[in-house]
Amino acid sequence: MKAAECELCRLDGGALVLRNEELRIVLADEPEYPGFCRVIWNAHVREMTDLAPPQIARLMGAVFAVEDALRAVCKPLKINLASLGNVTPHVHWHVIARFADDPHYPKPVWAERQREGDAASIAARCVLLPRLTDEIRARIKAQ
Amino acid sequence: MKAAECELCRLDGGALVLRNEELRIVLADEPEYPGFCRVIWNAHVREMTDLAPPQIARLMGAVFAVEDALRAVCKPLKINLASLGNVTPHVHWHVIARFADDPHYPKPVWAERQREGDAASIAARCVLLPRLTDEIRARIKAQ
Repeated sequence: MKAAECELCRLDGGALVLRNEELRIVLADEPEYPGFCRVIWNAHVREMTDLAPPQIARLMGAVFAVEDALRAVCKPLKINLASLGNVTPHVHWHVIARFADDPHYPKPVWAERQREGDAASIAARCVLLPRLTDEIRARIKAQ
Repeated sequence: MKAAECELCRLDGGALVLRNEELRIVLADEPEYPGFCRVIWNAHVREMTDLAPPQIARLMGAVFAVEDALRAVCKPLKINLASLGNVTPHVHWHVIARFADDPHYPKPVWAERQREGDAASIAARCVLLPRLTDEIRARIKAQ
């Protein structure tokens, strides 16, 4: 895939929480999963081991900062982390807050649905997103 | 979940490639996915951010060493990395070599099947496992 054809080269990939020279953090457009974040390397790089070790350290530092903020603000039952990229081979991490009443729990979010999402739970989690955004920014700034 | 009830506290979790005081690397029992590795933290820890930063660095160093060995030996189309733990909340990383003819490509391995696995391809990949084991051990030793 050429960079010009890559969705993550053309678009932010979600609602921007922050962007620096190397990476950006976005809230994914996943309406049933408020607090589904993505950490996206800005340059079109295919695999983690195509990055230099200091770049890997900074990217993973951002991923774990998002995990930490999600745990502090959203109190999920579990965090799921994944770097897949089969469809969009441009390094990006899914950082997902999981809850017992979410549509796929305890399966991965890519597996078959287990139930309908609970509208009241989803609404309550959406209310936390501004604070989540602040907490992510504070953690990245402190790194 | 108490440690006594945890599968990854009781069992290796696959065919052991190496074990040190902190972690182990195994070949997963996934017959259609030769080269599906797991990097498992030995202690019963729930989330990555429950680990201290130097522990995180060593665990991720092992994950990326496995990715590097898989790329060198198995030449996958894509590497998939994931730490989920919804069913077994004991920190472990899936490091998966993906190929265009594997049963789920381009979907995640947890999504619906796309096709039958190709027996000849699987057999050819199994032949590489001893070399993969050696290459993983060499990379961890060099860290």
